[in-house]
Amino acid sequence: MIGDSEFDRDTAVVRRGPGVYGIDLSAGWTIISAVNGGYLLAVLGRALADALPHPDPFTVSAYYLTASQPGPAVVRTETIRTGRTLSTGQASLFQYDDQGNEVERIRVLASYGDLAGLPDDVRTTATPPAIPPLDQCFGPADGPAPIEGSNAIADRLMLKLDPATLGWALGAPSGKGEMRAWFGLADGRDPDPLSLLLAVDALPPTAFEIGLKGWVPTVELTAHVRRRPAPGPLRVSITTRNLAGGFLEEDAEVWDSENHLVAQSRQLARARLA
Amino acid sequence: MIGDSEFDRDTAVVRRGPGVYGIDLSAGWTIISAVNGGYLLAVLGRALADALPHPDPFTVSAYYLTASQPGPAVVRTETIRTGRTLSTGQASLFQYDDQGNEVERIRVLASYGDLAGLPDDVRTTATPPAIPPLDQCFGPADGPAPIEGSNAIADRLMLKLDPATLGWALGAPSGKGEMRAWFGLADGRDPDPLSLLLAVDALPPTAFEIGLKGWVPTVELTAHVRRRPAPGPLRVSITTRNLAGGFLEEDAEVWDSENHLVAQSRQLARARLA
Repeated sequence: MIGDSEFDRDTAVVRRGPGVYGIDLSAGWTIISAVNGGYLLAVLGRALADALPHPDPFTVSAYYLTASQPGPAVVRTETIRTGRTLSTGQASLFQYDDQGNEVERIRVLASYGDLAGLPDDVRTTATPPAIPPLDQCFGPADGPAPIEGSNAIADRLMLKLDPATLGWALGAPSGKGEMRAWFGLADGRDPDPLSLLLAVDALPPTAFEIGLKGWVPTVELTAHVRRRPAPGPLRVSITTRNLAGGFLEEDAEVWDSENHLVAQSRQLARARLA
Repeated sequence: MIGDSEFDRDTAVVRRGPGVYGIDLSAGWTIISAVNGGYLLAVLGRALADALPHPDPFTVSAYYLTASQPGPAVVRTETIRTGRTLSTGQASLFQYDDQGNEVERIRVLASYGDLAGLPDDVRTTATPPAIPPLDQCFGPADGPAPIEGSNAIADRLMLKLDPATLGWALGAPSGKGEMRAWFGLADGRDPDPLSLLLAVDALPPTAFEIGLKGWVPTVELTAHVRRRPAPGPLRVSITTRNLAGGFLEEDAEVWDSENHLVAQSRQLARARLA
């Protein structure tokens, strides 16, 4: 189920030279006015997977500089250090202004390893999010579009939100900084470490449930991939504890169908107060 | 109280050219066999504060490549993007091998802003950590040294650990991934955004309370500074939810004397199972 999906096709980078990759950013992953940050993270993650000697992202830190648009882009990578267990690299995604000059969209640092090579020890106090069964959760197709502007990404995702975190869509946000959902790719492609980079930034912002409206642009997002996900739908839980000074953090946890914590992320985002 | 302290002297970088800084890493901040990662983060943070047009670190992501040693180092910075509210930069710290070749120790991406310019809104569900009063907590001077090797950093810090998270030092770790402490600089220097970068990585590793021993090297650490700290001691709470595959995350929260959440951080670290 991995290899010929919309996600695989739209993240496919073409090697143009040592560490340099081309891609045509798909319009299929836009939300409101910009290309989704999780999709972009997966594009950069895929370029680094090719450039570095290890296959899987263990930790990826992305700084979002300017909003990406559908269309041509180039990814430039640098191998910083190669070790036995981990290798570390850097990548930047560039697009072009009206004069054809490169404009940097995102810069990332990342360490890659081999998830299949890790010992199977787990000592965790983390528990999967309390979320109703999938058929009791709701997605964009179940009601009127709550977001103005493009929502093309909705057609690519299987996204079913916990009704307890859907108050914002009905004009009655809970006031809690929580968002929970079942998550998958609409064409049934199973999750893998790269699609986890999409999963951590694909839900509506927790800010909506706090009562804010509008764009919540990511400043920085770091994702840790902790385990190769089992096939089947993921559960994603996002929590915000602190909205202050016009910024908030979003902490995401991603759980697979076998109740393993497969990814954690945190982002700092800007919030415009109403 | 800021300007002439041990911390200020030992993080002072000397500008050698555009975006390039020299420093002699102090032996006063070593722990076990290496220079403390939080001290190094503060050194890089100080170089970027000089290189970027904004004064305060809002988010800093550090990738630790090789262990730093006391002695000469050079920091090379790059200004990636300058905006009205935020500017984003990159910095690397290098030392020298036996042949005098540069060896990269750490690479960071960071966005800086002006904490004094933020609106004073706070909508938070975060609460300060439950920690006993300072005089009921214990530091390195209150018992036998529980860590083998250098512990020079202990002389520079006012670090008083919650007895509930001190079981490891008595041979009886709680099994919970928690560490809590009062934190300050030993010479009484008040906290500021730069010293918060030290605070998030200055406590003993939570791995000790999970029952692990030995070195827990940081792979990646991202710190968000959320507010300028008030004078007086800080409280730092560190939590690990998931130890799996030989890696664990450490989430830190730093609270100031006026009960404001002033910093959050998360790191991915390697843990050697006993």
